[in-house]
Amino acid sequence: MAEARIGLVGLGVMGANLALNIADNGFPVVVHNRTTSVIDDFIANAGDLADRLVPAQDYAQMAAALTPPRAIIIMVKAGGPVDAVIDELKPHLDKGDIIIDAGNADFNDTRRREADLKDEGYRFVGMGVSGGEEGARHGPSIMVGGAPEAYAELSEIVEAIAAKYQDVPCAAHMGPDGAGHFVKTVHNGIEYADMQMIAEIYGILRDGDGRSPEAIGEIFHEWNQGPLQSYLVEITAEVLRATDPETGSPMVDIIQDMAGQKGTGRWTVIEALKLGQSPSTIEAAVAARSWSAGKPLRETAEGLLKELPGAETALPLLEGDLERALLAARIIGYSQGFSLLRAASDEFDWNLDLSSAAEIWRAGCIIRSSLLDDIATAFREDLPGDTLVLAPSFVRMLNDAIPALRRVVSQSAINGLAVPALSSALAYYDTLRKGRGTAALIQGQRDFFGAHGFERTDKDGTDYHGPWGQ
Amino acid sequence: MAEARIGLVGLGVMGANLALNIADNGFPVVVHNRTTSVIDDFIANAGDLADRLVPAQDYAQMAAALTPPRAIIIMVKAGGPVDAVIDELKPHLDKGDIIIDAGNADFNDTRRREADLKDEGYRFVGMGVSGGEEGARHGPSIMVGGAPEAYAELSEIVEAIAAKYQDVPCAAHMGPDGAGHFVKTVHNGIEYADMQMIAEIYGILRDGDGRSPEAIGEIFHEWNQGPLQSYLVEITAEVLRATDPETGSPMVDIIQDMAGQKGTGRWTVIEALKLGQSPSTIEAAVAARSWSAGKPLRETAEGLLKELPGAETALPLLEGDLERALLAARIIGYSQGFSLLRAASDEFDWNLDLSSAAEIWRAGCIIRSSLLDDIATAFREDLPGDTLVLAPSFVRMLNDAIPALRRVVSQSAINGLAVPALSSALAYYDTLRKGRGTAALIQGQRDFFGAHGFERTDKDGTDYHGPWGQ
Repeated sequence: MAEARIGLVGLGVMGANLALNIADNGFPVVVHNRTTSVIDDFIANAGDLADRLVPAQDYAQMAAALTPPRAIIIMVKAGGPVDAVIDELKPHLDKGDIIIDAGNADFNDTRRREADLKDEGYRFVGMGVSGGEEGARHGPSIMVGGAPEAYAELSEIVEAIAAKYQDVPCAAHMGPDGAGHFVKTVHNGIEYADMQMIAEIYGILRDGDGRSPEAIGEIFHEWNQGPLQSYLVEITAEVLRATDPETGSPMVDIIQDMAGQKGTGRWTVIEALKLGQSPSTIEAAVAARSWSAGKPLRETAEGLLKELPGAETALPLLEGDLERALLAARIIGYSQGFSLLRAASDEFDWNLDLSSAAEIWRAGCIIRSSLLDDIATAFREDLPGDTLVLAPSFVRMLNDAIPALRRVVSQSAINGLAVPALSSALAYYDTLRKGRGTAALIQGQRDFFGAHGFERTDKDGTDYHGPWGQ
Repeated sequence: MAEARIGLVGLGVMGANLALNIADNGFPVVVHNRTTSVIDDFIANAGDLADRLVPAQDYAQMAAALTPPRAIIIMVKAGGPVDAVIDELKPHLDKGDIIIDAGNADFNDTRRREADLKDEGYRFVGMGVSGGEEGARHGPSIMVGGAPEAYAELSEIVEAIAAKYQDVPCAAHMGPDGAGHFVKTVHNGIEYADMQMIAEIYGILRDGDGRSPEAIGEIFHEWNQGPLQSYLVEITAEVLRATDPETGSPMVDIIQDMAGQKGTGRWTVIEALKLGQSPSTIEAAVAARSWSAGKPLRETAEGLLKELPGAETALPLLEGDLERALLAARIIGYSQGFSLLRAASDEFDWNLDLSSAAEIWRAGCIIRSSLLDDIATAFREDLPGDTLVLAPSFVRMLNDAIPALRRVVSQSAINGLAVPALSSALAYYDTLRKGRGTAALIQGQRDFFGAHGFERTDKDGTDYHGPWGQ
């Protein structure tokens, strides 16, 4: 067998699949798991790939089995467990070895770990991996942060195991330290927004139009042949058309409507706020999941809030409105996500290549969609205001799709259909397209009660005050 | 002169006014400022009150001039400066003395300071003060956190200087450690939301209906005689009717429309997210301020986004719709704020009395409004779901006002008028009133791509999976 250059710690579903993927691509990989009985079972069930999998009962064995400079992937629960593995691993490593955290780390932790390990002579890489179990096994999208030289040493393996979009690997070096994990975090934020927008459209078709899950699934299946083509629309169709084997009912009707969250959406919003950004579509998606979790409260409320929506005054939806509304909102969601990446890149001096981020999301990851080609192109060209919705190709799409989003938000408001993400997308768009908004009044109020001062439209300076109380 | 029991450090506008307020109520107060020249000027300009103001050139003098147990108010910039004053002050204090931070502290800092100082034998009180300059001088709303015994010693002075609502002081002990500063933070969050909703209604009247600032000011002035009666509506009327002395134009038209923020709105949202809460009206208000600050981007966007809103299909607004829409959204904003207080109280074991919080906001503070009496009553009675919008009195108001909010959001969407806070309020309301929402689809998607598992509606258990891919 060839010399092993790479090890992997943590044989949970994601780690195990990643190890199989590496082996499948011809690289021997040394594997370890804290509960060591898992190691032998894993290799025993690996079939043909077993002879490229080298068991290590502890970190000393793992280090001995690897040719320096070693590269060791950690795939354990984010947070303390990652630090624990690093601490136990380090005594067995040589200076220059590379430790790779492939979990869903908080990028602040990744920045800290990278700085600490650099001081001690090790190299640390924060690697965001998207695509779920299937992606890990057969090709995820991989967002790498850390020293470029470290990536240069890893790129052969990383690009081999990554998803391919027309033969181009969906893996790239995003920038130093926490850049890879931050890009992954924002990926998940966009995913939250997109899923919520889809759920709102589903709600309109179900509650506003009385369609069955299967009929709605057919609609999403059709949309997936057009400009909405994407993994999330594709699986929405699958989920809606699935039947519960136990009851024979549509599966979606048997699932409790309380959404879980593992925290990456919430992280995205908190980090955005710290950067002075407000990605309203992601905020709305996080909100909708939180609110959904309060089911007893919603059941109480349903019995008490009996106000009748004024359905009789509703605007008619035009043919194709829902499809175009979802497209408009999706574009705005992506745009807010990329603006957040830009803000972080400026703040942390990452020099992020946003077209590269769009390119590696074209396959393997959850938010892959046919829009990402256009997005990558937009960021390679001269982009007005560095803002995706202002790219000429997207302006054209929005000119066509925004009127539909308006009608959908308008009709939903009248009919009592909750559309937090769709309406937040529209609110952002309508704020953006007004050179003069309404914040002057807020500045006037702030100066009135707190003497905060304001700028004037007719001259320079920042600390003018109004004639209040004169 | 009577013995001085209270000192004050930091003679900026707020600190100076608070010292004058204390003196005005008959209590001698020892004052110090880092730039000591300010101290003599302050006393020289204090008129009749000068003989109750005792200058201290340093902390030793301040400690010597106060009768133990001392109580010393710090009113300096939040963050490091507060810690610096505490560190310099401590060597001159005795065990049992009380240090009071009356600035806009992050409640996490207050919790840390309280714990540290308690270990050293001092008492620390975090005191939220709302009401701007005027309030500080003539009666603010005061939200106190810390040991109840410490508040018992301070209450005579604190309640004397506080605003009065029908002779009841607008000051109270909210709970231990950071409770006072947290309540103040949420107060500011509600303030953000209310200001933004007002600004959106102003925008509809200006851009949707072509009214002049003065005419809009008259409308707000009229509304201030009804159920919207409040300080913020009152000063909105003042601001809109004010004329710029330099140009003779309406003042609001001369103010640059880029809103500032000092961070309390953003803090509120970040802390809410950490608590699993999503106060969408506050999030929208923070977003609107952030977006307003990007004026060059908005000007670029205005030139590019030319899609024509479909004004011809707009719904007619009924007489009184805007007033009722603002009332509905305001109630929802308060409700989200109070739900956040409840969540924090549960998390930090504060045992917050929400009716007491509502009561001390009835005068002195920026969000004082005629609704707060009803709110205090609602929290004293049996409240369904612990949620303000479900109180019988508010259900009645919302039954009347929500249809107007629907029409306003609906018409704004069609006409291209940005209403992020109003639409977020409605989205929350419409999510709340649905026992069965659309999160089942999101759970289905999450299980499809990540095997996250879901609950079923027909039996217990939390880790069911769908028949995907079979």
